Amino acid sequence: MTNNSYGNNYTITTWGESHGKALGVVIDGCPAGLKLTEEDIQVFLDRRRPGRSKFATPRAEEDKAEILSGTLDGTTTGCPISVIVRNANQRSQDYSNIASVFRPGHADYTYEEKFGIRDYRGGGRSSGRETIGRVAGGAVASKILAELGVTIDCYTKSIGKYAITDLSDVHMDEIDNPLVMPNDMVAFQAMDYIEKCMKNNDSVGGTIECVIHNAPVGVGEPVFNKLDALLAKAMLSIGAVKGFEMGDGFLVARANGSDNNDEMSYDRDIVFHSNHAGGVLGGISTGQDIVFRVAIKPTPSIGRAQHTIDVNNDEVDINITGRHDPVIVPRAVVVVESMAAITLLDLMMDNMTSRMEYLKKVY
Amino acid sequence: MTNNSYGNNYTITTWGESHGKALGVVIDGCPAGLKLTEEDIQVFLDRRRPGRSKFATPRAEEDKAEILSGTLDGTTTGCPISVIVRNANQRSQDYSNIASVFRPGHADYTYEEKFGIRDYRGGGRSSGRETIGRVAGGAVASKILAELGVTIDCYTKSIGKYAITDLSDVHMDEIDNPLVMPNDMVAFQAMDYIEKCMKNNDSVGGTIECVIHNAPVGVGEPVFNKLDALLAKAMLSIGAVKGFEMGDGFLVARANGSDNNDEMSYDRDIVFHSNHAGGVLGGISTGQDIVFRVAIKPTPSIGRAQHTIDVNNDEVDINITGRHDPVIVPRAVVVVESMAAITLLDLMMDNMTSRMEYLKKVY
Amino acid sequence: MTNNSYGNNYTITTWGESHGKALGVVIDGCPAGLKLTEEDIQVFLDRRRPGRSKFATPRAEEDKAEILSGTLDGTTTGCPISVIVRNANQRSQDYSNIASVFRPGHADYTYEEKFGIRDYRGGGRSSGRETIGRVAGGAVASKILAELGVTIDCYTKSIGKYAITDLSDVHMDEIDNPLVMPNDMVAFQAMDYIEKCMKNNDSVGGTIECVIHNAPVGVGEPVFNKLDALLAKAMLSIGAVKGFEMGDGFLVARANGSDNNDEMSYDRDIVFHSNHAGGVLGGISTGQDIVFRVAIKPTPSIGRAQHTIDVNNDEVDINITGRHDPVIVPRAVVVVESMAAITLLDLMMDNMTSRMEYLKKVY
Amino acid sequence: MTNNSYGNNYTITTWGESHGKALGVVIDGCPAGLKLTEEDIQVFLDRRRPGRSKFATPRAEEDKAEILSGTLDGTTTGCPISVIVRNANQRSQDYSNIASVFRPGHADYTYEEKFGIRDYRGGGRSSGRETIGRVAGGAVASKILAELGVTIDCYTKSIGKYAITDLSDVHMDEIDNPLVMPNDMVAFQAMDYIEKCMKNNDSVGGTIECVIHNAPVGVGEPVFNKLDALLAKAMLSIGAVKGFEMGDGFLVARANGSDNNDEMSYDRDIVFHSNHAGGVLGGISTGQDIVFRVAIKPTPSIGRAQHTIDVNNDEVDINITGRHDPVIVPRAVVVVESMAAITLLDLMMDNMTSRMEYLKKVY
Repeated sequence: MTNNSYGNNYTITTWGESHGKALGVVIDGCPAGLKLTEEDIQVFLDRRRPGRSKFATPRAEEDKAEILSGTLDGTTTGCPISVIVRNANQRSQDYSNIASVFRPGHADYTYEEKFGIRDYRGGGRSSGRETIGRVAGGAVASKILAELGVTIDCYTKSIGKYAITDLSDVHMDEIDNPLVMPNDMVAFQAMDYIEKCMKNNDSVGGTIECVIHNAPVGVGEPVFNKLDALLAKAMLSIGAVKGFEMGDGFLVARANGSDNNDEMSYDRDIVFHSNHAGGVLGGISTGQDIVFRVAIKPTPSIGRAQHTIDVNNDEVDINITGRHDPVIVPRAVVVVESMAAITLLDLMMDNMTSRMEYLKKVY
Repeated sequence: MTNNSYGNNYTITTWGESHGKALGVVIDGCPAGLKLTEEDIQVFLDRRRPGRSKFATPRAEEDKAEILSGTLDGTTTGCPISVIVRNANQRSQDYSNIASVFRPGHADYTYEEKFGIRDYRGGGRSSGRETIGRVAGGAVASKILAELGVTIDCYTKSIGKYAITDLSDVHMDEIDNPLVMPNDMVAFQAMDYIEKCMKNNDSVGGTIECVIHNAPVGVGEPVFNKLDALLAKAMLSIGAVKGFEMGDGFLVARANGSDNNDEMSYDRDIVFHSNHAGGVLGGISTGQDIVFRVAIKPTPSIGRAQHTIDVNNDEVDINITGRHDPVIVPRAVVVVESMAAITLLDLMMDNMTSRMEYLKKVY
Repeated sequence: MTNNSYGNNYTITTWGESHGKALGVVIDGCPAGLKLTEEDIQVFLDRRRPGRSKFATPRAEEDKAEILSGTLDGTTTGCPISVIVRNANQRSQDYSNIASVFRPGHADYTYEEKFGIRDYRGGGRSSGRETIGRVAGGAVASKILAELGVTIDCYTKSIGKYAITDLSDVHMDEIDNPLVMPNDMVAFQAMDYIEKCMKNNDSVGGTIECVIHNAPVGVGEPVFNKLDALLAKAMLSIGAVKGFEMGDGFLVARANGSDNNDEMSYDRDIVFHSNHAGGVLGGISTGQDIVFRVAIKPTPSIGRAQHTIDVNNDEVDINITGRHDPVIVPRAVVVVESMAAITLLDLMMDNMTSRMEYLKKVY
Repeated sequence: MTNNSYGNNYTITTWGESHGKALGVVIDGCPAGLKLTEEDIQVFLDRRRPGRSKFATPRAEEDKAEILSGTLDGTTTGCPISVIVRNANQRSQDYSNIASVFRPGHADYTYEEKFGIRDYRGGGRSSGRETIGRVAGGAVASKILAELGVTIDCYTKSIGKYAITDLSDVHMDEIDNPLVMPNDMVAFQAMDYIEKCMKNNDSVGGTIECVIHNAPVGVGEPVFNKLDALLAKAMLSIGAVKGFEMGDGFLVARANGSDNNDEMSYDRDIVFHSNHAGGVLGGISTGQDIVFRVAIKPTPSIGRAQHTIDVNNDEVDINITGRHDPVIVPRAVVVVESMAAITLLDLMMDNMTSRMEYLKKVY
């Protein structure tokens, strides 16, 4: 099976390892006629770039996107768009000591068992750098969505126990902090907490929330390619994501139907009285905001002794000294947003054949 | 896109509406040489059959499975297995009053908007009866897995606030209660709670937990068809599921790396000291138990007045009097188990081409 | 891999064996809002039904189509359409003598080797009856195409050396003969030839030509899902088809570029001076007629002694006495037409996302 | 739909235009543990490289392959293999005169109509240079096949009317001529013919034959992913291919069953008396040689005046003076071989799940 491709109509195929020559993506199925420059992609890549705050790995990578195909004079041609990012600051020597050891919480052991061989340099394909291709693909998808009126807000919702607990406390004008957390007060507390953990040579987890505005009603393909099902797949495919909630998520398990149902009325347009469902019913968008959350685990690389084994099954204590992020969450925000954009766009394309009248609009 | 097919190698294609003539599934890619009878499938279907307790809809359906193709003398031939279940007790008249009204919490509105037409009889394709095909497909997948040594425990973990909080409190010998909840004491409390809600004309939600034992290490196809990603898709594709957690799930958001990493040692075989990860690292199975949970929302059909609109945008109060379950959770258990079995089997098939040496074992 | 599904947007999943309980198809991705009755499908099925002339097997099958799902009051709902045809006249006893023998020219040997088990009754899944599901799917696709203005002419072009050599000799008003060959004179000669072969206990082959009128320009998805590539796959997936030609086909191998290129001019619309290409350039439709041909081999079942082996590797002479067609070609015409309709429709759906402006037409 | 990906298990995703910055391929699903160097790929690329004889375009491209990911110390890791080839000798100025004109026999018109925009430089994506990615992917597939004992002979069978008419006249030790035609005498005549056509400013077509040796029995997935069906798709997806024949191909249309069936006997192994079928029955390999042919049209670019229109629908006479091959056939041989290798390997992977006993070999 093709495992490094995602999407049915608008498809990304990503490739590349943390310390290989380069990483990249082939974007297939991008409609012709979209204005697109390398700068459009760079803006997204810069949001996940390392080295921009003390809460992120100091690895210095420019992550410069180069478009190799699929555009003519700044316009997409409908042919596959190949985007490449060269690795610059690889410092493979940092990793020589872990070549034969399975780091706890990392995919070292499972890659070794699955393939019988493993690119140990910086985690190889299981590194967070793998997401470069996703973000490049998401940048293009987001630009298409924007032309169709759809916009996305994605942000850090919580770090440890420090959380923006309510949507009304999300202030998107306060998002420009190192945590990409749109509430200055909560972000301040969270940063303080992270610094304490860092001193303790420890890492922290958190949650990311994503809100898609103005998505059309009717998007999502039951019964297996439901909007929420594909969002869940998209999110859990991101390394370090351990949970997914649509709308009220796990809260529904304690709710009653009388509370959880979103009642409707009509005032020049349909009005929902609430959005417990997160903008999806029966796997199809309702036209409300699409709201979901993901849980991100703490960075597994920590500067503390951990017990593990090596490839010879000998037990060792390992202390990971390479560069790493004390928290993955802020840099993962744009990855979540990118995967959401790709998923929604792809399903919007699917939906174009759901009615005979849509076929007649084109033919 | 094909939306009613699931799986790449072992594939189910489901069809049928709640009040149509029949429902069914085509199972494609089942290996030849498996002993298979209708009884194997019936055992699974009986676990989701209605009318078996006061906590389930009284709709009387036998749900008898008939195999129409793909076997010869009780053995699979490698050709597609078509399974059909005839609808018997349709009582469409119950639904005539909702033909033009959008029930809150149901997919009525979204199907109408997506397709411009909607089979209103019992929810049509968005009904829980749609899962019959999944369960038939899951029965066959489970039988294959069992031959390979893999078994699955799946059960109700919580109803409302009544929960089996720890894996050590799961007593699989106590699962034969109407809630499919393997702890008699908690189940008793939960049943009491449901009865109170029923008197209140209300419904309740809950969670389901699934534990897969003895899965081989190495299963899962990064970076997009990771084991956890496909489980998440499989689960969110089930109606009423609003959340998914792998291993510790959302708890990781508050954890530190030093707690969350699963350390390893070696004692004749690899030993993990814990299983926060839920048996998957980098999207690939570790060989530990695979553990995940889903959140199920309360049944949207309730016998209380709810405000909504009809197809003419007129506002109405609706009081749903048809037969319905006060809680979906117990009947959804076998659906969760079935989708898990299909997902794991499908990925085990994918994994058979991950190494040159595997190819040489067959060729 | 799913092997019994065809198509990406409009998908058929077929199932069933020659002498099983039933055969059928699940049509997924049919747009909502199409008027559809069982009669629409029956008309197509009747064109491939056995027992209608002395040149077809006398097996008496009504092949009555029943729609089990996916329509409401005669209109498609966008949900999967399950169509079933019960087997009636199975006479399995005819085949008891071949249960352990590999018939030359049949798939007995290869199914046995691939699966280790084989439904020997009438060829099981490798029987021509497998095409029932394709034709039901093709009937629906053709109805959709007709609403979009696209029509298809498909017919027997040659039987043995008796051929309608030029498109100008195709008289569609003369197609109602047992050979489905739209030229009375050639058909008469061909029938005479077949009768001679029948007396000789032998079978004959032939070719089928298909012409699609009024297909839009721009259909086909390079570089792998080209219109001609998918037509070729569709055709070679039909049992007994051994060759495929697009436009001039193998004649191009002897042509010069100066002859083979189709020049263009303009007279209120684009005008091609010729159609050597068969209506496709670079894998994309030109707007001209789409023209292709397939070669059909002689029925492998013949009433003559043939040398072969059985499952124990013992050599035997076999003389096939069961019912069989002396020529497959006439009954395959509607199968070719059906697969062409599905392929074109599916690619027309793909094409709906090829330009940004098409997305804006729907959203 | 993804249109630039081919294969289900072993997948190539190709990208790049004739005069863009680069072309390449992402190979996904390559098993881990294969020895692989850039030289392995270069050997294949050199077989399609331009400028090697007077019968090929003088465009001077080194076509140097660079592997960017997916290997570690010369061994595949199971992760996607990205291969890039930089364009060097682009000379875009040659094409400025055709930017607005639709060349007869080329895809200019159809790309313009499909996408509303077209990379006119050297044909953009519709150029023969697109096949670079296919050939790189085929080189890797062929290496895997060779490890499993499968080898492929692929060669020019005919140019114009000059043909190697019988398999016994194929002398693979005589293949090293500019036409890749393994019969010195026929090749000599064909070269003479091409030179005459070149003087006449004209181009010629031909056929390519491919013989796969030692493929296992049982490969091919009925009913839609039959071996011959996927080979047909693979071949027709190559630009300039207009026909496909399996085994006897179109000859079967004139044959009788008594001649066309391949009888069998047994002498320590199964022995077929003939191979009219071309090594496939019911879409599954028989274990005999797999034999097929394709028809290649004459190069559409010719140095003669041809009548056509431009983007403004004005009629013009065009005389194509850029560099081009007088015959495509010799350079297409390795493309045919590559696509055959990918197709067979991919189906061999599919076949690994066809029996329960195969699953038990791996698990």
